[in-house]
Amino acid sequence: MHELLKEQCYRANMKLPALDLVIYTFGNVSVVDRENGIFAIKPSGVPYNDLQVDDMVILDFDNNILEGKMRPSSDTKTHAYLYETWETIGSISHTHSTYSVAWAQAQMDIPIFGTTHADHLTSDIPCTPPMRDELIEGDYEHNTGIQIMECFKDRQLDPAEVEMVLIGNHGPFTWGANAEKAVYNSKVLEELAKMAYLTVQINGKAPRLKDALINKHYQRKHGTGSYYGQK
Amino acid sequence: MHELLKEQCYRANMKLPALDLVIYTFGNVSVVDRENGIFAIKPSGVPYNDLQVDDMVILDFDNNILEGKMRPSSDTKTHAYLYETWETIGSISHTHSTYSVAWAQAQMDIPIFGTTHADHLTSDIPCTPPMRDELIEGDYEHNTGIQIMECFKDRQLDPAEVEMVLIGNHGPFTWGANAEKAVYNSKVLEELAKMAYLTVQINGKAPRLKDALINKHYQRKHGTGSYYGQK
Amino acid sequence: MHELLKEQCYRANMKLPALDLVIYTFGNVSVVDRENGIFAIKPSGVPYNDLQVDDMVILDFDNNILEGKMRPSSDTKTHAYLYETWETIGSISHTHSTYSVAWAQAQMDIPIFGTTHADHLTSDIPCTPPMRDELIEGDYEHNTGIQIMECFKDRQLDPAEVEMVLIGNHGPFTWGANAEKAVYNSKVLEELAKMAYLTVQINGKAPRLKDALINKHYQRKHGTGSYYGQK
Amino acid sequence: MHELLKEQCYRANMKLPALDLVIYTFGNVSVVDRENGIFAIKPSGVPYNDLQVDDMVILDFDNNILEGKMRPSSDTKTHAYLYETWETIGSISHTHSTYSVAWAQAQMDIPIFGTTHADHLTSDIPCTPPMRDELIEGDYEHNTGIQIMECFKDRQLDPAEVEMVLIGNHGPFTWGANAEKAVYNSKVLEELAKMAYLTVQINGKAPRLKDALINKHYQRKHGTGSYYGQK
Repeated sequence: MHELLKEQCYRANMKLPALDLVIYTFGNVSVVDRENGIFAIKPSGVPYNDLQVDDMVILDFDNNILEGKMRPSSDTKTHAYLYETWETIGSISHTHSTYSVAWAQAQMDIPIFGTTHADHLTSDIPCTPPMRDELIEGDYEHNTGIQIMECFKDRQLDPAEVEMVLIGNHGPFTWGANAEKAVYNSKVLEELAKMAYLTVQINGKAPRLKDALINKHYQRKHGTGSYYGQK
Repeated sequence: MHELLKEQCYRANMKLPALDLVIYTFGNVSVVDRENGIFAIKPSGVPYNDLQVDDMVILDFDNNILEGKMRPSSDTKTHAYLYETWETIGSISHTHSTYSVAWAQAQMDIPIFGTTHADHLTSDIPCTPPMRDELIEGDYEHNTGIQIMECFKDRQLDPAEVEMVLIGNHGPFTWGANAEKAVYNSKVLEELAKMAYLTVQINGKAPRLKDALINKHYQRKHGTGSYYGQK
Repeated sequence: MHELLKEQCYRANMKLPALDLVIYTFGNVSVVDRENGIFAIKPSGVPYNDLQVDDMVILDFDNNILEGKMRPSSDTKTHAYLYETWETIGSISHTHSTYSVAWAQAQMDIPIFGTTHADHLTSDIPCTPPMRDELIEGDYEHNTGIQIMECFKDRQLDPAEVEMVLIGNHGPFTWGANAEKAVYNSKVLEELAKMAYLTVQINGKAPRLKDALINKHYQRKHGTGSYYGQK
Repeated sequence: MHELLKEQCYRANMKLPALDLVIYTFGNVSVVDRENGIFAIKPSGVPYNDLQVDDMVILDFDNNILEGKMRPSSDTKTHAYLYETWETIGSISHTHSTYSVAWAQAQMDIPIFGTTHADHLTSDIPCTPPMRDELIEGDYEHNTGIQIMECFKDRQLDPAEVEMVLIGNHGPFTWGANAEKAVYNSKVLEELAKMAYLTVQINGKAPRLKDALINKHYQRKHGTGSYYGQK
């Protein structure tokens, strides 16, 4: 059962070490099956080298395990909450990639400095503020999902456009219509994080990208009259 | 038709990921055929792993597609403008390499700090100023070509000597007599960008290379009495 | 004799260059056999490419060579002292990995900035103060062991929880229940060192991770009710 | 003739790209035959991928070409001068490795911050001051050799102990008893340059390594009572 979903999930997870986004057991990718209201996710604490397709765990959005012999990722409840809340997303990727984590640890948004950034989203990459202690001590991973959702609500961001977030002091979560896009966003975020890091080191007063360029680059790739990519 | 041109263009494009200058679909290389007034360029938004020789698109300098089933790079008009304006160049390479983009996002020229730089050009590597909004909202990619040309005119730079530029907030364009040289310049620019980055981090008051060394290194490689390389 | 111990030691040492933690002859890993009160360690100054299983040297905790034709690592006495003092550790790994060495040379603890750090330990990563001259000029490597032990005693750190230390101006030592864990800790330390480096460059006032997050992440992985990893 | 010398020289040159110390045609290694008063060096401007054993050029210390069809490295006179002046050295390696070049461009010595440095030399790594214009415009590469020699004389450094130097605004030269050691020193210098770079970024007031540690580490590896490495 669910072989295709597990296979997609497995392949997406294996891309994380291949793209230098994780070491050892860090990180996890999940893929949702909207029709059946279930998702597959990496088992917790298993090194990528040892991972097998059948190790993927199948859960519903209430975090009940439907299939799989292993414990799911400790971040599973964050994934479940996001799938339930944001009905357009098809896959979620969480890494501890170095430059993204550094911005999260600095508790700062990644400013939009250039067109590489605007090719993907029009706003700064949001970094959630520190969570309140009672939420950390409570249902932490579920509350992390709430924290992401509230951050997007407060800033009026659309998860269909801004497919990435930094959890303050933790690291990045990205998502997308499918597994390939979610992992792509993890890699692109890391690249944007490194570019922005170098930019502020060179020029501490580097200005934000001007609106006309933000709009031009985002629209030529994602707008109704887009001409980037193939039809 | 144009098999050789497409083959050259394909091979040059495939060097960009091999040289760690791009990820995914970022960047594009074009190669010109001066005799026929046409050029080949990478199709837009195609991952390098999926690229085929026959995917290359053939256009004239007015951006008419002469051959190819795919949409050309969204930056095509910049290439066309430069080929039309600068008759000595044979190939153009555009990447989003990390250190070069960082200088572009910092909106700063890359200062000439050392002989590695002077082995290739005698001036700072120019960074174009932000484009005016009406030009961005107009024929943006064509105007990017004009922006590069005007930057070189204002600074009295010769594109036959200075084969690289940073588009402010965007990234690098390089060129050369042929595809190999254009891509070589992309790689060298990235190396110069990283060296200059580290230099200003170590010594914020590092002086520009003295003129005698600039001239010595440039002339020993490119001057009439050059003795670098083979005859 | 001691073939298994030598084999474990050899394999652990060979991971150091594979994980980009050492170049040439830098670094060394040892593995202890508690039952027999002996340990195996890399021979001194032998390049990893030339290393053979039989080159591993077997010693007791008084640094007597019991087996092996080669001189043991010049850091052997530090290993012996730690095995004798801390009876729970099964292996020690010493590298000159770049970011860890940089913090050691800066003579600064690595602050706990994020959950990647708290997944592994709840305190800053300690950096020992400079050793007094008479101790350097005396039994230096033995005294390095004492220095580590005293640092942990002064700060009331438990080597079973904090499995890593920076020797001021020298570099990192890590340990663990077995060879795999000791080397794992060397790699994780290097990653934490790089993340913390980038964090302070982005935000010189980045705050220490709040206690609730430190406890949550450490406990979910190592506490009595842990739910990270497999049972 | 001189096949062995050319073979040694070829193999040493090929290590430079393998060790990530050069790209394209940057850098060059030479190896001396003291008995015959000749040396082999890389031909000028030839990419490493295209290099053949027979391309190596054989010269005497007056820069007369004795064998070889290609022009020797443009830096040949610097090599010749150093071989003539320092009779103990057997090979010279010149790279444009990134962190070493950055310190050279910053016109600063690399301070001795840690034991990795003291394992190899007891002083800061010297950076020569800018050359006077008339020397640059004269016999530049020969004068570069003089510049290195005078820097060592002024600072009372012994080239048998300090086997590396930064040419201000240019880059590193290293040497050693043989080709393997000269290239080893290029790689170690690059590692020391990166470690020192990171150290000053973390702690702008990081102190120089104390004398007792400098002496201990250098002597345990190179002193009369050394116990590092095999007998």
